[in-house]
Amino acid sequence: MSAADETADRAAGGEQPWDEVTPEAARKLLIAAVEAFAERGYHATTTRDIAGRAGMSPAALYIHYKTKEELLHRISRIGHDKALDILNAAYAGAGTPTDRLADAVRSFVRWHAGRHTTARVVQYELEALSETHRTEIVGLRRQSDAVVRRILEEGVETGEFDVPDVPGTAVAVLSLCIDVARWFNTRGRRTPDEVGALYADLVLRMVSAQKK
Amino acid sequence: MSAADETADRAAGGEQPWDEVTPEAARKLLIAAVEAFAERGYHATTTRDIAGRAGMSPAALYIHYKTKEELLHRISRIGHDKALDILNAAYAGAGTPTDRLADAVRSFVRWHAGRHTTARVVQYELEALSETHRTEIVGLRRQSDAVVRRILEEGVETGEFDVPDVPGTAVAVLSLCIDVARWFNTRGRRTPDEVGALYADLVLRMVSAQKK
Repeated sequence: MSAADETADRAAGGEQPWDEVTPEAARKLLIAAVEAFAERGYHATTTRDIAGRAGMSPAALYIHYKTKEELLHRISRIGHDKALDILNAAYAGAGTPTDRLADAVRSFVRWHAGRHTTARVVQYELEALSETHRTEIVGLRRQSDAVVRRILEEGVETGEFDVPDVPGTAVAVLSLCIDVARWFNTRGRRTPDEVGALYADLVLRMVSAQKK
Repeated sequence: MSAADETADRAAGGEQPWDEVTPEAARKLLIAAVEAFAERGYHATTTRDIAGRAGMSPAALYIHYKTKEELLHRISRIGHDKALDILNAAYAGAGTPTDRLADAVRSFVRWHAGRHTTARVVQYELEALSETHRTEIVGLRRQSDAVVRRILEEGVETGEFDVPDVPGTAVAVLSLCIDVARWFNTRGRRTPDEVGALYADLVLRMVSAQKK
Protein backbone atom coordinates (compact mmCIF):
# COMPACT_ATOMS: atom_id res chain seq x y z
CA MET A 1 0.00 0.00 0.00
CA SER A 2 1.43 3.39 -0.91
CA ALA A 3 1.57 6.27 1.56
CA ALA A 4 -1.13 8.07 -0.44
CA ASP A 5 -3.36 5.00 -0.28
CA GLU A 6 -2.86 4.77 3.46
CA THR A 7 -3.83 8.40 3.83
CA ALA A 8 -6.96 7.77 1.75
CA ASP A 9 -7.82 4.75 3.89
CA ARG A 10 -7.32 6.67 7.09
CA ALA A 11 -9.38 9.53 5.75
CA ALA A 12 -12.21 7.09 4.99
CA GLY A 13 -11.90 5.59 8.48
CA GLY A 14 -11.77 9.10 9.86
CA GLU A 15 -15.24 9.81 8.45
CA GLN A 16 -16.62 7.98 11.46
CA PRO A 17 -16.89 10.79 13.97
CA TRP A 18 -17.75 8.65 17.06
CA ASP A 19 -19.32 11.83 18.37
CA GLU A 20 -21.38 9.77 20.82
CA VAL A 21 -18.21 9.00 22.73
CA THR A 22 -17.07 11.57 25.26
CA PRO A 23 -14.80 12.79 26.71
CA GLU A 24 -12.18 13.20 23.98
CA ALA A 25 -9.79 10.71 25.62
CA ALA A 26 -12.46 7.98 25.59
CA ARG A 27 -13.17 8.78 21.93
CA LYS A 28 -9.48 8.56 20.97
CA LEU A 29 -9.14 5.23 22.76
CA LEU A 30 -12.17 3.84 20.99
CA ILE A 31 -10.84 4.86 17.57
CA ALA A 32 -7.48 3.27 18.46
CA ALA A 33 -9.29 0.08 19.49
CA VAL A 34 -11.20 -0.12 16.18
CA GLU A 35 -7.94 0.19 14.25
CA ALA A 36 -6.11 -2.35 16.40
CA PHE A 37 -8.94 -4.91 16.32
CA ALA A 38 -9.26 -4.52 12.55
CA GLU A 39 -5.54 -4.98 11.98
CA ARG A 40 -4.66 -7.76 14.39
CA GLY A 41 -7.97 -9.16 15.63
CA TYR A 42 -9.53 -8.76 19.07
CA HIS A 43 -7.65 -11.58 20.78
CA ALA A 44 -4.22 -10.48 19.55
CA THR A 45 -4.75 -6.90 20.77
CA THR A 46 -3.90 -5.86 24.33
CA THR A 47 -5.20 -2.83 26.21
CA ARG A 48 -1.55 -1.72 26.24
CA ASP A 49 -1.53 -1.75 22.41
CA ILE A 50 -4.69 0.35 22.35
CA ALA A 51 -3.42 2.86 24.89
CA GLY A 52 -0.13 3.11 22.97
CA ARG A 53 -1.89 3.81 19.67
CA ALA A 54 -3.88 6.57 21.34
CA GLY A 55 -0.68 8.01 22.84
CA MET A 56 -1.83 7.26 26.38
CA SER A 57 -0.74 5.10 29.28
CA PRO A 58 -2.54 1.84 30.19
CA ALA A 59 -3.58 3.56 33.44
CA ALA A 60 -5.28 6.34 31.45
CA LEU A 61 -7.19 3.69 29.48
CA TYR A 62 -8.57 2.08 32.65
CA ILE A 63 -10.13 5.39 33.68
CA HIS A 64 -12.46 5.05 30.68
CA TYR A 65 -12.72 1.31 30.01
CA LYS A 66 -12.40 -1.38 32.64
CA THR A 67 -11.72 -4.16 30.13
CA LYS A 68 -10.88 -4.73 26.49
CA GLU A 69 -14.29 -6.35 26.13
CA GLU A 70 -15.93 -3.11 27.27
CA LEU A 71 -14.26 -1.35 24.34
CA LEU A 72 -15.46 -4.00 21.89
CA HIS A 73 -18.96 -3.82 23.32
CA ARG A 74 -19.01 -0.02 23.01
CA ILE A 75 -17.90 -0.22 19.36
CA SER A 76 -20.37 -2.99 18.57
CA ARG A 77 -23.26 -1.25 20.32
CA ILE A 78 -22.70 2.06 18.55
CA GLY A 79 -22.27 0.28 15.21
CA HIS A 80 -25.44 -1.78 15.61
CA ASP A 81 -27.45 1.19 16.89
CA LYS A 82 -26.38 3.12 13.80
CA ALA A 83 -27.29 0.24 11.48
CA LEU A 84 -30.73 -0.01 13.04
CA ASP A 85 -31.21 3.79 12.86
CA ILE A 86 -30.42 3.71 9.14
CA LEU A 87 -33.01 1.00 8.49
CA ASN A 88 -35.64 2.64 10.70
CA ALA A 89 -35.15 5.97 8.91
CA ALA A 90 -35.70 4.25 5.57
CA TYR A 91 -38.78 2.49 6.92
CA ALA A 92 -40.21 5.75 8.24
CA GLY A 93 -39.61 7.50 4.91
CA ALA A 94 -42.31 8.65 2.52
CA GLY A 95 -43.14 6.69 -0.60
CA THR A 96 -43.98 3.14 -1.54
CA PRO A 97 -42.38 -0.03 -0.16
CA THR A 98 -40.26 0.02 -3.35
CA ASP A 99 -38.95 3.49 -2.50
CA ARG A 100 -38.31 2.55 1.10
CA LEU A 101 -36.51 -0.69 0.26
CA ALA A 102 -34.29 1.10 -2.26
CA ASP A 103 -33.54 3.77 0.35
CA ALA A 104 -32.76 1.15 3.02
CA VAL A 105 -30.34 -0.71 0.74
CA ARG A 106 -28.68 2.46 -0.54
CA SER A 107 -28.02 3.87 2.92
CA PHE A 108 -27.09 0.53 4.50
CA VAL A 109 -24.55 -0.14 1.74
CA ARG A 110 -23.15 3.38 1.95
CA TRP A 111 -22.58 2.91 5.68
CA HIS A 112 -20.88 -0.47 5.25
CA ALA A 113 -18.65 0.85 2.45
CA GLY A 114 -17.77 4.13 4.15
CA ARG A 115 -17.27 2.56 7.58
CA HIS A 116 -15.84 -0.73 6.39
CA THR A 117 -13.17 -0.94 9.11
CA THR A 118 -15.69 -0.47 11.92
CA ALA A 119 -18.21 -2.74 10.23
CA ARG A 120 -15.67 -5.56 9.93
CA VAL A 121 -14.83 -5.38 13.63
CA VAL A 122 -18.52 -5.24 14.53
CA GLN A 123 -19.36 -8.23 12.30
CA TYR A 124 -16.37 -10.52 12.78
CA GLU A 125 -15.70 -10.17 16.52
CA LEU A 126 -19.22 -10.93 17.74
CA GLU A 127 -18.05 -14.16 19.38
CA ALA A 128 -15.59 -12.25 21.56
CA LEU A 129 -18.38 -10.38 23.39
CA SER A 130 -19.49 -11.55 26.82
CA GLU A 131 -22.69 -13.57 26.83
CA THR A 132 -24.77 -10.67 28.18
CA HIS A 133 -23.41 -8.27 25.59
CA ARG A 134 -23.77 -10.77 22.76
CA THR A 135 -27.41 -11.31 23.68
CA GLU A 136 -27.99 -7.55 23.61
CA ILE A 137 -26.34 -7.20 20.18
CA VAL A 138 -28.20 -10.20 18.77
CA GLY A 139 -31.41 -8.44 19.90
CA LEU A 140 -30.47 -5.36 17.86
CA ARG A 141 -29.72 -7.55 14.84
CA ARG A 142 -33.13 -9.18 15.14
CA GLN A 143 -34.69 -5.71 15.11
CA SER A 144 -32.80 -4.85 11.92
CA ASP A 145 -34.01 -8.09 10.35
CA ALA A 146 -37.57 -7.26 11.40
CA VAL A 147 -37.49 -3.84 9.71
CA VAL A 148 -36.49 -5.37 6.39
CA ARG A 149 -39.09 -8.11 6.76
CA ARG A 150 -41.76 -5.47 7.41
CA ILE A 151 -40.85 -3.51 4.26
CA LEU A 152 -40.96 -6.74 2.24
CA GLU A 153 -44.33 -7.76 3.71
CA GLU A 154 -45.83 -4.35 3.00
CA GLY A 155 -44.62 -4.54 -0.59
CA VAL A 156 -46.18 -7.98 -0.95
CA GLU A 157 -49.46 -6.54 0.35
CA THR A 158 -49.45 -3.69 -2.18
CA GLY A 159 -48.56 -6.17 -4.93
CA GLU A 160 -45.28 -4.41 -5.74
CA PHE A 161 -43.23 -7.34 -4.47
CA ASP A 162 -43.38 -11.05 -5.07
CA VAL A 163 -41.41 -12.69 -2.24
CA PRO A 164 -42.17 -16.37 -1.60
CA ASP A 165 -39.76 -16.53 1.38
CA VAL A 166 -39.81 -13.24 3.33
CA PRO A 167 -37.51 -14.23 6.25
CA GLY A 168 -34.92 -15.83 3.95
CA THR A 169 -35.01 -12.90 1.55
CA ALA A 170 -34.61 -10.40 4.41
CA VAL A 171 -31.48 -12.26 5.56
CA ALA A 172 -30.14 -12.26 1.99
CA VAL A 173 -30.76 -8.53 1.50
CA LEU A 174 -28.99 -7.59 4.73
CA SER A 175 -26.20 -10.07 4.07
CA LEU A 176 -25.55 -8.62 0.62
CA CYS A 177 -25.23 -5.13 2.14
CA ILE A 178 -23.13 -6.21 5.14
CA ASP A 179 -20.61 -8.09 2.99
CA VAL A 180 -19.76 -4.81 1.24
CA ALA A 181 -17.62 -4.13 4.34
CA ARG A 182 -15.51 -7.20 3.51
CA TRP A 183 -14.72 -6.45 -0.12
CA PHE A 184 -15.07 -2.68 -0.36
CA ASN A 185 -11.80 -0.95 -1.01
CA THR A 186 -11.32 2.79 -0.90
CA ARG A 187 -8.82 2.31 -3.74
CA GLY A 188 -11.36 0.48 -5.90
CA ARG A 189 -13.21 1.90 -8.88
CA ARG A 190 -16.59 2.42 -7.21
CA THR A 191 -17.65 4.97 -4.62
CA PRO A 192 -19.95 3.99 -1.73
CA ASP A 193 -22.78 5.86 -3.52
CA GLU A 194 -22.24 3.91 -6.74
CA VAL A 195 -22.27 0.57 -4.94
CA GLY A 196 -25.41 1.68 -3.07
CA ALA A 197 -27.19 2.55 -6.32
CA LEU A 198 -26.19 -0.74 -7.99
CA TYR A 199 -27.29 -2.79 -4.98
CA ALA A 200 -30.63 -1.00 -4.64
CA ASP A 201 -31.32 -1.91 -8.27
CA LEU A 202 -30.25 -5.56 -7.77
CA VAL A 203 -32.37 -5.95 -4.63
CA LEU A 204 -35.45 -4.46 -6.30
CA ARG A 205 -35.03 -6.95 -9.14
CA MET A 206 -34.83 -9.73 -6.53
CA VAL A 207 -38.16 -8.87 -4.96
CA SER A 208 -40.24 -7.02 -7.54
CA ALA A 209 -43.32 -8.67 -8.97
CA GLN A 210 -42.71 -9.57 -12.62
CA LYS A 211 -44.71 -7.67 -15.18
CA LYS A 212 -47.36 -10.05 -16.48
CA MET B 1 -23.43 -23.58 23.25
CA SER B 2 -24.54 -27.00 24.48
CA ALA B 3 -22.37 -30.10 24.19
CA ALA B 4 -24.76 -31.49 21.55
CA ASP B 5 -24.47 -28.25 19.55
CA GLU B 6 -20.71 -28.42 19.74
CA THR B 7 -20.77 -31.96 18.47
CA ALA B 8 -23.02 -30.90 15.59
CA ASP B 9 -20.67 -28.02 14.80
CA ARG B 10 -17.64 -30.27 14.88
CA ALA B 11 -19.41 -32.78 12.68
CA ALA B 12 -20.14 -30.04 10.13
CA GLY B 13 -16.51 -28.87 10.30
CA GLY B 14 -15.45 -32.48 10.01
CA GLU B 15 -17.13 -32.75 6.60
CA GLN B 16 -14.05 -31.08 5.18
CA PRO B 17 -11.81 -34.05 4.52
CA TRP B 18 -8.63 -32.12 3.64
CA ASP B 19 -7.69 -35.25 1.72
CA GLU B 20 -5.23 -33.21 -0.34
CA VAL B 21 -3.03 -32.89 2.72
CA THR B 22 -0.65 -35.72 3.45
CA PRO B 23 0.83 -37.28 5.50
CA GLU B 24 -1.75 -37.70 8.26
CA ALA B 25 0.24 -35.56 10.74
CA ALA B 26 0.26 -32.62 8.32
CA ARG B 27 -3.49 -33.04 7.83
CA LYS B 28 -4.18 -33.07 11.57
CA LEU B 29 -2.08 -29.94 12.06
CA LEU B 30 -3.93 -28.15 9.29
CA ILE B 31 -7.32 -29.00 10.79
CA ALA B 32 -6.07 -27.79 14.19
CA ALA B 33 -4.89 -24.55 12.57
CA VAL B 34 -8.28 -23.91 10.94
CA GLU B 35 -10.02 -24.33 14.30
CA ALA B 36 -7.53 -22.15 16.17
CA PHE B 37 -7.57 -19.36 13.57
CA ALA B 38 -11.38 -19.40 13.51
CA GLU B 39 -11.65 -19.22 17.29
CA ARG B 40 -8.96 -16.73 18.21
CA GLY B 41 -7.81 -15.17 14.94
CA TYR B 42 -4.54 -15.72 13.10
CA HIS B 43 -2.46 -13.22 15.06
CA ALA B 44 -3.54 -14.52 18.48
CA THR B 45 -2.68 -18.11 17.56
CA THR B 46 0.83 -19.52 18.04
CA THR B 47 2.32 -22.56 16.35
CA ARG B 48 2.54 -23.99 19.89
CA ASP B 49 -1.29 -23.65 20.21
CA ILE B 50 -1.75 -25.45 16.90
CA ALA B 51 0.64 -28.27 17.77
CA GLY B 52 -1.07 -28.64 21.17
CA ARG B 53 -4.53 -28.92 19.59
CA ALA B 54 -3.24 -31.62 17.27
CA GLY B 55 -1.66 -33.45 20.22
CA MET B 56 1.86 -32.89 18.87
CA SER B 57 4.98 -31.07 19.91
CA PRO B 58 6.06 -27.76 18.33
CA ALA B 59 9.06 -29.64 16.92
CA ALA B 60 6.73 -32.08 15.16
CA LEU B 61 4.88 -29.14 13.61
CA TYR B 62 8.07 -27.68 12.14
CA ILE B 63 8.71 -30.90 10.24
CA HIS B 64 5.59 -30.12 8.18
CA TYR B 65 5.24 -26.34 8.26
CA LYS B 66 8.12 -23.91 8.59
CA THR B 67 5.92 -21.01 9.71
CA LYS B 68 2.39 -20.20 10.87
CA GLU B 69 1.96 -18.27 7.64
CA GLU B 70 2.70 -21.43 5.65
CA LEU B 71 -0.28 -23.08 7.39
CA LEU B 72 -2.56 -20.16 6.59
CA HIS B 73 -1.38 -20.14 3.00
CA ARG B 74 -2.02 -23.88 2.65
CA ILE B 75 -5.57 -23.47 4.05
CA SER B 76 -6.27 -20.44 1.88
CA ARG B 77 -4.88 -22.06 -1.26
CA ILE B 78 -6.89 -25.26 -0.85
CA GLY B 79 -10.04 -23.24 -0.04
CA HIS B 80 -9.67 -20.95 -3.04
CA ASP B 81 -8.79 -23.82 -5.38
CA LYS B 82 -11.96 -25.59 -4.25
CA ALA B 83 -14.08 -22.45 -4.74
CA LEU B 84 -12.73 -22.03 -8.26
CA ASP B 85 -13.27 -25.74 -9.02
CA ILE B 86 -16.92 -25.43 -7.96
CA LEU B 87 -17.50 -22.45 -10.24
CA ASN B 88 -15.62 -24.03 -13.17
CA ALA B 89 -17.66 -27.23 -12.82
CA ALA B 90 -20.88 -25.19 -12.96
CA TYR B 91 -19.60 -23.29 -15.99
CA ALA B 92 -18.66 -26.52 -17.77
CA GLY B 93 -22.10 -28.03 -17.07
CA ALA B 94 -24.76 -28.73 -19.66
CA GLY B 95 -27.75 -26.46 -20.09
CA THR B 96 -28.42 -22.78 -20.57
CA PRO B 97 -26.66 -19.90 -18.83
CA THR B 98 -29.68 -19.87 -16.49
CA ASP B 99 -29.06 -23.49 -15.53
CA ARG B 100 -25.36 -22.93 -15.09
CA LEU B 101 -25.77 -19.78 -12.98
CA ALA B 102 -28.28 -21.57 -10.73
CA ASP B 103 -25.88 -24.48 -10.38
CA ALA B 104 -22.94 -22.18 -9.61
CA VAL B 105 -24.88 -20.36 -6.88
CA ARG B 106 -26.31 -23.55 -5.38
CA SER B 107 -22.97 -25.30 -5.10
CA PHE B 108 -21.03 -22.19 -4.05
CA VAL B 109 -23.56 -21.52 -1.26
CA ARG B 110 -23.54 -25.15 -0.15
CA TRP B 111 -19.77 -25.04 0.16
CA HIS B 112 -19.78 -21.80 2.17
CA ALA B 113 -22.51 -23.09 4.48
CA GLY B 114 -21.06 -26.57 4.97
CA ARG B 115 -17.46 -25.34 5.32
CA HIS B 116 -18.27 -22.08 7.12
CA THR B 117 -15.35 -22.33 9.57
CA THR B 118 -12.79 -22.81 6.83
CA ALA B 119 -14.46 -20.19 4.64
CA ARG B 120 -14.31 -17.59 7.41
CA VAL B 121 -10.59 -18.15 7.95
CA VAL B 122 -9.98 -18.04 4.21
CA GLN B 123 -11.98 -14.82 3.79
CA TYR B 124 -11.09 -12.85 6.90
CA GLU B 125 -7.36 -13.56 7.26
CA LEU B 126 -6.32 -12.59 3.74
CA GLU B 127 -4.34 -9.63 5.05
CA ALA B 128 -2.17 -11.93 7.17
CA LEU B 129 -0.70 -13.67 4.11
CA SER B 130 2.74 -12.70 2.84
CA GLU B 131 2.71 -10.41 -0.17
CA THR B 132 3.67 -13.22 -2.59
CA HIS B 133 0.97 -15.51 -1.24
CA ARG B 134 -1.65 -12.76 -1.19
CA THR B 135 -0.91 -11.98 -4.84
CA GLU B 136 -1.35 -15.66 -5.70
CA ILE B 137 -4.70 -15.86 -3.84
CA VAL B 138 -5.96 -12.60 -5.35
CA GLY B 139 -5.21 -14.16 -8.74
CA LEU B 140 -7.46 -17.14 -7.91
CA ARG B 141 -10.21 -14.79 -6.75
CA ARG B 142 -10.00 -12.88 -10.04
CA GLN B 143 -10.44 -16.18 -11.87
CA SER B 144 -13.58 -16.94 -9.82
CA ASP B 145 -14.93 -13.49 -10.64
CA ALA B 146 -14.19 -14.08 -14.32
CA VAL B 147 -16.16 -17.35 -14.39
CA VAL B 148 -19.28 -15.64 -13.03
CA ARG B 149 -18.85 -12.72 -15.42
CA ARG B 150 -18.61 -15.17 -18.33
CA ILE B 151 -21.85 -16.94 -17.35
CA LEU B 152 -23.58 -13.55 -17.05
CA GLU B 153 -22.25 -12.37 -20.42
CA GLU B 154 -23.37 -15.56 -22.14
CA GLY B 155 -26.85 -15.18 -20.64
CA VAL B 156 -27.01 -11.60 -21.90
CA GLU B 157 -26.05 -12.84 -25.37
CA THR B 158 -28.82 -15.46 -25.40
CA GLY B 159 -31.29 -12.86 -24.12
CA GLU B 160 -32.01 -14.82 -20.92
CA PHE B 161 -30.36 -12.20 -18.75
CA ASP B 162 -30.63 -8.45 -18.55
CA VAL B 163 -27.54 -7.25 -16.67
CA PRO B 164 -26.63 -3.57 -17.16
CA ASP B 165 -23.49 -3.86 -14.98
CA VAL B 166 -21.85 -7.28 -15.47
CA PRO B 167 -18.70 -6.75 -13.33
CA GLY B 168 -20.67 -5.20 -10.43
CA THR B 169 -23.32 -7.90 -10.58
CA ALA B 170 -20.68 -10.66 -10.61
CA VAL B 171 -19.15 -9.17 -7.44
CA ALA B 172 -22.60 -9.01 -5.82
CA VAL B 173 -23.47 -12.61 -6.71
CA LEU B 174 -20.21 -13.97 -5.28
CA SER B 175 -20.46 -11.70 -2.23
CA LEU B 176 -23.97 -12.91 -1.45
CA CYS B 177 -22.76 -16.52 -1.54
CA ILE B 178 -19.53 -15.89 0.40
CA ASP B 179 -21.33 -14.08 3.23
CA VAL B 180 -23.31 -17.26 3.94
CA ALA B 181 -20.14 -18.40 5.77
CA ARG B 182 -20.55 -15.47 8.20
CA TRP B 183 -24.18 -15.97 9.20
CA PHE B 184 -24.77 -19.66 8.56
CA ASN B 185 -25.33 -21.61 11.71
CA THR B 186 -25.51 -25.38 11.85
CA ARG B 187 -28.12 -24.93 14.58
CA GLY B 188 -30.29 -22.69 12.38
CA ARG B 189 -33.49 -23.67 10.64
CA ARG B 190 -32.11 -24.03 7.13
CA THR B 191 -29.83 -26.68 5.67
CA PRO B 192 -27.03 -25.74 3.24
CA ASP B 193 -29.17 -27.20 0.42
CA GLU B 194 -32.16 -25.04 1.35
CA VAL B 195 -30.08 -21.87 1.45
CA GLY B 196 -28.54 -22.87 -1.89
CA ALA B 197 -31.96 -23.29 -3.50
CA LEU B 198 -33.28 -19.98 -2.10
CA TYR B 199 -30.18 -18.09 -3.24
CA ALA B 200 -30.22 -19.60 -6.74
CA ASP B 201 -33.80 -18.33 -7.06
CA LEU B 202 -32.90 -14.85 -5.75
CA VAL B 203 -29.89 -14.54 -8.06
CA LEU B 204 -31.89 -15.61 -11.12
CA ARG B 205 -34.47 -12.95 -10.28
CA MET B 206 -31.62 -10.42 -10.05
CA VAL B 207 -30.36 -11.09 -13.55
CA SER B 208 -33.23 -12.54 -15.57
CA ALA B 209 -34.72 -10.50 -18.38
CA GLN B 210 -38.22 -9.34 -17.43
CA LYS B 211 -41.06 -10.82 -19.38
CA LYS B 212 -42.32 -8.11 -21.73
